[in-house]
Amino acid sequence: MVVDINNVIKKLNLMAKVGGTLDGGISRLALSEADKQARDLLVSWMKELDLLVSIDDVGNIYGRMEGKNPDANPLVLGSHLDSLENSGIYDGILGILIPLEIIRVFKEKSLIPEKPIIVGNFTNEEGFRFKPLMSGSGVLSGDFDIESVYKERDSDGKSFKEELEKIGYLGARENRLDKAEAFIELHQEQGPILDLKKTPIGVVEGILGLTWLTVTLEGRTDNSGPTPMYARQDTLTTAAKMITFAEEFASEISEHGIITVGQIINEPNNINAVPGLTKLTLDIREINDELRIDAVKELKEKLREIAVDSKVKISFEIDWELNSTIFSSELNEAVRNAVDYYEYPSKEMVSGAGHISTYMNNICPTTMIFVPSINGISHSPAEKTEWEDIEKSAEVLIYVVKKIAKAESKVTF
Amino acid sequence: MVVDINNVIKKLNLMAKVGGTLDGGISRLALSEADKQARDLLVSWMKELDLLVSIDDVGNIYGRMEGKNPDANPLVLGSHLDSLENSGIYDGILGILIPLEIIRVFKEKSLIPEKPIIVGNFTNEEGFRFKPLMSGSGVLSGDFDIESVYKERDSDGKSFKEELEKIGYLGARENRLDKAEAFIELHQEQGPILDLKKTPIGVVEGILGLTWLTVTLEGRTDNSGPTPMYARQDTLTTAAKMITFAEEFASEISEHGIITVGQIINEPNNINAVPGLTKLTLDIREINDELRIDAVKELKEKLREIAVDSKVKISFEIDWELNSTIFSSELNEAVRNAVDYYEYPSKEMVSGAGHISTYMNNICPTTMIFVPSINGISHSPAEKTEWEDIEKSAEVLIYVVKKIAKAESKVTF
Repeated sequence: MVVDINNVIKKLNLMAKVGGTLDGGISRLALSEADKQARDLLVSWMKELDLLVSIDDVGNIYGRMEGKNPDANPLVLGSHLDSLENSGIYDGILGILIPLEIIRVFKEKSLIPEKPIIVGNFTNEEGFRFKPLMSGSGVLSGDFDIESVYKERDSDGKSFKEELEKIGYLGARENRLDKAEAFIELHQEQGPILDLKKTPIGVVEGILGLTWLTVTLEGRTDNSGPTPMYARQDTLTTAAKMITFAEEFASEISEHGIITVGQIINEPNNINAVPGLTKLTLDIREINDELRIDAVKELKEKLREIAVDSKVKISFEIDWELNSTIFSSELNEAVRNAVDYYEYPSKEMVSGAGHISTYMNNICPTTMIFVPSINGISHSPAEKTEWEDIEKSAEVLIYVVKKIAKAESKVTF
Repeated sequence: MVVDINNVIKKLNLMAKVGGTLDGGISRLALSEADKQARDLLVSWMKELDLLVSIDDVGNIYGRMEGKNPDANPLVLGSHLDSLENSGIYDGILGILIPLEIIRVFKEKSLIPEKPIIVGNFTNEEGFRFKPLMSGSGVLSGDFDIESVYKERDSDGKSFKEELEKIGYLGARENRLDKAEAFIELHQEQGPILDLKKTPIGVVEGILGLTWLTVTLEGRTDNSGPTPMYARQDTLTTAAKMITFAEEFASEISEHGIITVGQIINEPNNINAVPGLTKLTLDIREINDELRIDAVKELKEKLREIAVDSKVKISFEIDWELNSTIFSSELNEAVRNAVDYYEYPSKEMVSGAGHISTYMNNICPTTMIFVPSINGISHSPAEKTEWEDIEKSAEVLIYVVKKIAKAESKVTF
């Protein structure tokens, strides 16, 4: 075992104090004072490892280890330091600390890869304080315009640009990462699949595409007592049939299909009134975009039928649509080879949540490596991953890095 | 036709101006300035008809026409002047204006009944400004204690007693109605049944008993994307199955069984979060109390099963229980005879909503006569009943009054 997991544990515990909360979580909102402190700490660690640090105009931090061939496209490893309000200490940070440990191992072994390696922190992944989420990687890929991102304001009216400047991380546009050999993001799964299967490594094939819909049902509000069941136009009982249908329908899309009704608004919402207006949201996710688009169409047709049967008016509003991300099959092959080499259990899977990798995939071959979230808990002070699983993921990643960055060591490790 | 419906129309239109709203409705909250004006107008009409007016300690108004036998128990006809905020102009008032017109006919025909006839207005039927609803009749029946009613405060902190005194309708305890031959309340149905069947008269067998429950479901909140369908403890999909079951189960209780889920509270209620806490209310109504109690038991058992299947915790809280009211079969026989005499279509039915009659039934033989609510609309400026149906109900009521008060006329009318 060449990776010394204690280095990662030490750094993770130090970082957990930055923006730490009383219940063991963190609140490290993008471009806050806590984010500044976390960035400063990261930069100090990069400098300890003799990495060349640069900052771009959206505040992304790059720590570069030069390769034998400085003109080669770099291999980029990274994730994010920012968090939601009262979130957990593993989210994002693992994807930065493990790459730093890999660099340390390379230094220790005097192993210089052919290609440069960059460890990166990408600004505002969570999108909790400033919209849009994943602005750091989205600007790099051209999905977001930097001037629009600069103008975003938090709930106190403070602008993204002012706050980025204030914390001292407004860098130069010429420092933006524009080309890369590959991008690899190691991250907690944020779901229960690996933990349920007691599998340490997830090979991530891609990120689910999504459609967000709001369904509005209009019926008639009546007094409950005097209105017999047959004479009602009850939008909540109609919504209930739709929710049940949607849940069952999810598994018909594919093994990855997910449909969530997360929000319901009901009016007048009194114990003795037949509801006359109900709104519900549908969050439909699937890795195959065609299947998702067909499923949304079929779902809408079925919901229309239910509405007609219930004598209720229905209308739909599309709130968001995002195509799926399909990661590099070559990078995943490299991950599979590493997993096979160490004889670790692993699982081919998809990510249900968006990540920095969503946009990095538009720049260069990209993939993610997942480690388990115990009980599927995520974005919570209670989130946790076993250190032995983190250690395994570090070994897998170092194997892949050696392959991609072409770091041939004489000593096997 | 002895009743002159134009007298009722004229009075109804005058009364509609008292507390009238711009959209043709009324806001005549109990013990408000508008209620005072409505009461003053009613008292003036009673005096025009030479009725002896008295007020009791809860503010109920009685207008008495003496009978040949002043010691006989009176026949009481009445309803209420108060309304909800922005309600309709027919609710309650019909049950006062038609009896006044009947008294006018008796006077015109010099018909003196054996028994006294009282026309009554009963305080605070709606319970919108002061709890409990139906305080006027509930105090008479002993269901409510006058001192507790006096202490109730509206949302501005004003007490029932102060407000009753302020509008000049705090009368004497000895004026309370304590014995009566019968009580008859003519009222809008407040539901769609008579209108759907184009039937002018509803013979009301009783008022549904009710159980109000709150169901709390506790599961686990997860991020929607990374949490596959099989790993969820989704309280909203669980609630949906319960709502669908409850709706279907209602018709299994009896032909009168009603179950309403009027209120739903869902947390965290975000488009991309699997709901982890959902509360819903159940309003279960049925005319047969045993059937209702059995139904509540069976419903709770079934909901527990659904919760177990969904890996969700369930708990119940009973918010209110009220037994059903069964009206006098003799009075209803008299109503049926009247309907048969005039050859009007009629329907045997139950009331889903509570009324002054709920408590009057504890004092004396009681019944109600329903007239249609067009499209079932009630408690709304849009509520309406056709005048030809109101006229028919007046004829039915005068027939019943003659029978019960023993007013034998030489001329048939």
